[in-house]
Amino acid sequence: MNTSITGFTPITAEIADQLRRIVGPGNVIYGDAERLEKYSHDEIPEPAYAHSPEAVVRPANTEEVAAIVKLANRARFPVTPRGAGSGLSGGAVPVCGGVVLLMDRMNRILEIDPANMCVVVEPGVVTNDINQALKPHGLFYAGYPMSLETCFIGGNVAENAGGARAVKYGVTARYVTGLEVVTPTGEVLTLGGKLVKNVTGYDLVQLMVGSEGTLGVITKVVLKLLPLPRASADLLVLFRTTSEAITAVPRMVSAGGVVPTAVEFMDQTSMRAACEYLTETIPYAQAGAMLLITVDGADASQVAADYETVGEQCLAAGAIEVYVADNLTTSERIWRVRRNMGEAFAVITCHQTSEDLVVPIARIPELVAGMEALAAKYDVQIPCYGHAGDGNIHTRIVMNPAWTLPRWEQTLPKLLHELYTLTASLGGKISGEHGIGHKRKREMPMFVPPAAIDMMRAIKRAMDPNGILNPGKIFDS
Amino acid sequence: MNTSITGFTPITAEIADQLRRIVGPGNVIYGDAERLEKYSHDEIPEPAYAHSPEAVVRPANTEEVAAIVKLANRARFPVTPRGAGSGLSGGAVPVCGGVVLLMDRMNRILEIDPANMCVVVEPGVVTNDINQALKPHGLFYAGYPMSLETCFIGGNVAENAGGARAVKYGVTARYVTGLEVVTPTGEVLTLGGKLVKNVTGYDLVQLMVGSEGTLGVITKVVLKLLPLPRASADLLVLFRTTSEAITAVPRMVSAGGVVPTAVEFMDQTSMRAACEYLTETIPYAQAGAMLLITVDGADASQVAADYETVGEQCLAAGAIEVYVADNLTTSERIWRVRRNMGEAFAVITCHQTSEDLVVPIARIPELVAGMEALAAKYDVQIPCYGHAGDGNIHTRIVMNPAWTLPRWEQTLPKLLHELYTLTASLGGKISGEHGIGHKRKREMPMFVPPAAIDMMRAIKRAMDPNGILNPGKIFDS
Repeated sequence: MNTSITGFTPITAEIADQLRRIVGPGNVIYGDAERLEKYSHDEIPEPAYAHSPEAVVRPANTEEVAAIVKLANRARFPVTPRGAGSGLSGGAVPVCGGVVLLMDRMNRILEIDPANMCVVVEPGVVTNDINQALKPHGLFYAGYPMSLETCFIGGNVAENAGGARAVKYGVTARYVTGLEVVTPTGEVLTLGGKLVKNVTGYDLVQLMVGSEGTLGVITKVVLKLLPLPRASADLLVLFRTTSEAITAVPRMVSAGGVVPTAVEFMDQTSMRAACEYLTETIPYAQAGAMLLITVDGADASQVAADYETVGEQCLAAGAIEVYVADNLTTSERIWRVRRNMGEAFAVITCHQTSEDLVVPIARIPELVAGMEALAAKYDVQIPCYGHAGDGNIHTRIVMNPAWTLPRWEQTLPKLLHELYTLTASLGGKISGEHGIGHKRKREMPMFVPPAAIDMMRAIKRAMDPNGILNPGKIFDS
Repeated sequence: MNTSITGFTPITAEIADQLRRIVGPGNVIYGDAERLEKYSHDEIPEPAYAHSPEAVVRPANTEEVAAIVKLANRARFPVTPRGAGSGLSGGAVPVCGGVVLLMDRMNRILEIDPANMCVVVEPGVVTNDINQALKPHGLFYAGYPMSLETCFIGGNVAENAGGARAVKYGVTARYVTGLEVVTPTGEVLTLGGKLVKNVTGYDLVQLMVGSEGTLGVITKVVLKLLPLPRASADLLVLFRTTSEAITAVPRMVSAGGVVPTAVEFMDQTSMRAACEYLTETIPYAQAGAMLLITVDGADASQVAADYETVGEQCLAAGAIEVYVADNLTTSERIWRVRRNMGEAFAVITCHQTSEDLVVPIARIPELVAGMEALAAKYDVQIPCYGHAGDGNIHTRIVMNPAWTLPRWEQTLPKLLHELYTLTASLGGKISGEHGIGHKRKREMPMFVPPAAIDMMRAIKRAMDPNGILNPGKIFDS
């Protein structure tokens, strides 16, 4: 057997032919470096994390996925499932080469089942399309990643995507009650079902969710649905300090009795950059920290009562100003600022790294203070924003535009090491919703005890004896 | 090594001494069959499922648990963790003998953390005590097993307990964000934390939840909290048929926009038995099926709006009558009927079996019709009640009191086989919330594909190489 340095067999012309026989000749890209390049990366900007596949294969159904995975086990080449490629940790990047399994042809909403309050979809459905299809039924799927207009539901499940509405609705995992997966050895397995309670053996559904395509290829998803909220409103709340802003969050929940849909945090650096980028005129100058809070509910009067409660709690916690947006235009104006954070900094320099830290909510002020100190110490910008209601802070370390690239490349690892050490000391983890992939793999031991990583490895080995499914992710095997 | 027929070493006087050295002499029961008997069963009434431990050991802390498990690995005896013993599938029954690890001394609420909206508890805390302690903080833990006044939180986590409020709040798993466990090899492992989002590697927290004490001994639990609802009300809704009652459930959610806290179902057989047992006078005679619906919320006016919506949707779905209980006395009167179902049938005969079937909600009418047909065919009572909002139907097959015991013992397996076949054909599973234990182990292959059971076995083997932790549960190793 002809094996590469990774221990895997390269995709030969003969293997490519076998792949063409499974999915049809038009659904294999092979020997075309230019067309393959597109599948060498996800949304991580740094080129260092890219790696081209040897072939891209587009299966039309579960049987074709199973046949490809079986072939991979016989011939020993790696298989990396890929959705829309909107990930931020390299989950869909074929770091050991081999085949990228592109799920875009498996894009049907198979069944809308209002009587059982669920929907059955293929992995290649765009997340937002699910809710478009559900609207006439008065139901919705509560998963809400920020990329929902492009990402695929299969990727959301594989990464256990979070997003802005997780404060009230939780993350993807909460809604996945059933899965069809192709196992790493090529078996088709139906797990769970249209069931909201199920303790019939270990919860393999939840083990698959968030396993980043290393334990199975998702070929069908059963999602639990909720009643579509009929009203919502947004509050933009200005605070003098991060500490005051964050203290308001548990207070509005426990003292006010309201769980907001979203509680987004932005520091002044973030707000200034985004407002300048968008030529937006929100009066942030006096505020050190801002919360963007959404409430939703069954009707407008309940939502109004809820946002009044939330506003009062914020003022009691020291807010300077509360702006209410109870119409779509104003809401969109505020959310546009939040959604454009990434772009606002991307125009400054392409040299930056995006982080996905998560800490216990009450530790956010310490994390933010630490980041401010690091920004001063290393003379870089560290804007800080994210899902405050979940303790999930997205930050970017942005290269000082006056620096040379070597200076940046020397500085960044030191800065990140300090940031990760601080995060760990606050009881935090390195990823709240983006996943580990190969991007954050080296940092795992700082956040997860070695015995737990060994357990993950043991589970992976038990389920994927040939190590063919998305190798090189989460941990080294 | 002196091994028993199970392949394990019996607990010798020398091992008992070693156990006494770990936990203190007063915390080991050994060689006293009478005192050990209490730990031979949980709440399953049938004696056939009982099995006495050779020793009961009561650790005071995590270090003692780890020392016991390490000793078990060296000496090769089985260890079965036990909470309050209120289980219904034999999870805490030491079917291979060995040591029962009684967690009742580890019963401290370690930390109430309102700023992070979580509580940290030891496994031996009575579930209801958590909410008593949280009340002054305006927070609550939303898990609500029916045995909450006696059961331990550790057992709830190990079994992934459900209960009556799961329609709105979900089951135990949703609230467990962090665990300290002693692994089957005796390592102390901290998983997750005070984090509501976390995708730092495989979700070992969720793998532990519901693993019935076979993958780790839970020694600490971090529970996410919600704001304490300030108001609630109950509706008792009478329908002519099960079909009409069940059709009303998704309708009140999707057309009404309200997710009730609880939606309990009772058929006429159940209602009659419970009302006669309690000399209660609820006018059920004309009704073939009843729903007991709870709504809760942040204030009384919202709750009133919600129960009016729910009542209207029920009437539109064909309800004969809607009774509202918006005060504690009337609510308690109705819930008493529901809670006393078990006892109402227990007084008829001690020969009965309790089932925990779960099906997609819309299939409940077919399941109930099937049970009525089986009751007629086999000439037994099959009362049908449970958590309709979750598709989780508890039924009891009650021996015809006119029968001889041998006739019952011959009939029951045939009847159950038909019932399970029907449940599987409806996309259902054998356990919604009670777990598999050894009681339902033989039936697993009817409900879970062989490849999935193999996966569970492989995970168990990888994590517990000596097979010492709660052997003989869920599947045969």
